[in-house]
Amino acid sequence: MKTILIIGIGAGDPDYLTVQAVKALNRADVFFLMDKGPAKAKLRALREEICRRHIAPGHPHRFVEAPSPPRDTRPSDYRASVDELNAAKQAVFEQMIADMKDGETAGILVWGDPMLYDSTIRNLEAISATGNGQIALEVIPGITAIQALAARHGIPLNRIAEPVLVTTGRRLADGLPNGVDSAVVLLDGEDTYRRFAGANMEIYWGAYLGTPDEILIAGKLDEVVDEIHRRRSEARREHGWIMDTYLIRRA
Amino acid sequence: MKTILIIGIGAGDPDYLTVQAVKALNRADVFFLMDKGPAKAKLRALREEICRRHIAPGHPHRFVEAPSPPRDTRPSDYRASVDELNAAKQAVFEQMIADMKDGETAGILVWGDPMLYDSTIRNLEAISATGNGQIALEVIPGITAIQALAARHGIPLNRIAEPVLVTTGRRLADGLPNGVDSAVVLLDGEDTYRRFAGANMEIYWGAYLGTPDEILIAGKLDEVVDEIHRRRSEARREHGWIMDTYLIRRA
Ligand SMILES: C[S@@+](CC[C@H](N)C(=O)[O-])C[C@H]1O[C@@H](n2cnc3c(N)ncnc32)[C@H](O)[C@@H]1O
Ligand SMILES: C[S@@+](CC[C@H](N)C(=O)[O-])C[C@H]1O[C@@H](n2cnc3c(N)ncnc32)[C@H](O)[C@@H]1O
Repeated sequence: MKTILIIGIGAGDPDYLTVQAVKALNRADVFFLMDKGPAKAKLRALREEICRRHIAPGHPHRFVEAPSPPRDTRPSDYRASVDELNAAKQAVFEQMIADMKDGETAGILVWGDPMLYDSTIRNLEAISATGNGQIALEVIPGITAIQALAARHGIPLNRIAEPVLVTTGRRLADGLPNGVDSAVVLLDGEDTYRRFAGANMEIYWGAYLGTPDEILIAGKLDEVVDEIHRRRSEARREHGWIMDTYLIRRA
Repeated sequence: MKTILIIGIGAGDPDYLTVQAVKALNRADVFFLMDKGPAKAKLRALREEICRRHIAPGHPHRFVEAPSPPRDTRPSDYRASVDELNAAKQAVFEQMIADMKDGETAGILVWGDPMLYDSTIRNLEAISATGNGQIALEVIPGITAIQALAARHGIPLNRIAEPVLVTTGRRLADGLPNGVDSAVVLLDGEDTYRRFAGANMEIYWGAYLGTPDEILIAGKLDEVVDEIHRRRSEARREHGWIMDTYLIRRA
């Protein structure tokens, strides 16, 4: 039997880590690292910093690093490219698990919460289902980018008793569904909020939330749309990458 | 200047507390308590247990308890009853803040994350806006019931690249909006999921998540709908109250 802990580490501030996550870090014999893209070095450094800060000095552990499979950034078929990427990631995880000793516990540190737009649970479930050896999976929740956004702006996510759609830039491009006035948007590489200019919306936008580079902009969409676009482009140029998210809703 | 920390404590397991929340607990001179309803004693005990466990022995602090204003449980006008309740809560908070010494910091411990179907941020913003003395507000995110649900079932919240609606039982009764196949439902006192029987849905349901009383049921809705209804009624009868949430989606 091998145990895999899928540990949410929060989406920015190292202090977003929960007590449960700290305990999980201290159960792991090995950590699987698989970062990618231009933010790779920064993410890797953060994970190591979290381990250094929270793992008890006497607890032996090792790191196994695997290259994340490359990703087609402008695929013609989005779903197929995601499936392909996940198959490649699964193969990497399978090998890392095969290399574990029986009875060992591995930790995978996931940005934010593993439940939210992340493939780790899905990939590990798929491996566990093939039944190549017994694997116990455990998921530890973490503070998501959505929560970082709301906390840093000091706002509730929902209006009183109203729903909120959690969605992606790609899906927001289709507009808000009937009866839904608020959406929180992740994974938007295309500044999709700009399509709503002139539609009497308000926006709460945040980039690099919970980190020293954090940027917050909020207001009537029409009044801040250009500023967000400008700051976003500048920041992306400066850092080489950006992570941003926003709440957009009818005013 | 007075500082108010609105601290998310997570939605069940005391270990859902973040390191940031622990630090916030240790900054507060006074904690405002305002629990209500049949779960009051349990919630109050949990808050005290969290303080006991995480506040450094040398850090002096006091508790101020205020009765939560009573709530009309079956109001004819839902919005008006919420507005009335919040006005009453604001008055209570205002008095507690007036009683603070200048320069002091107060902590309000909010179940789950203050951003999610909770009035604390809204009420404190309203007080702060009246400008009766300077108030600095700070929000500390916490693990929501949604995250507890996903983690305990070991599932992602969203299907790959798809949106999820965060909603209430009341709003789910209107059906899923066009183009939205998944909803996570809070505040459902009416077993609204039962309306979707026969519609080829699946459900992941959880009650008292993250606590020793936790119940988890998942499956094709038609196959588990009666079991959920039965277990939910029994548990509510046994405990005198229930908190439950679920993810429902087209199969
Ligand atoms: C692949 S999703 C993963 C989300 C993550 N599992 C979570 O719980 O937040 C990545 C997206 O999350 C958002 N995001 C993550 N961290 C962020 C941060 N610190 N500031 C702003 N947005 C962030 C961005 O929209 C980014 O495109
Ligand atoms: C007023 S809302 C507050 C939500 C809270 N702020 C959060 O972040 O989870 C209360 C609702 O949250 C859900 N809930 C909270 N804690 C829960 C738990 N431990 N298990 C199941 N549902 C829970 C229930 O749907 C309940 O009706």
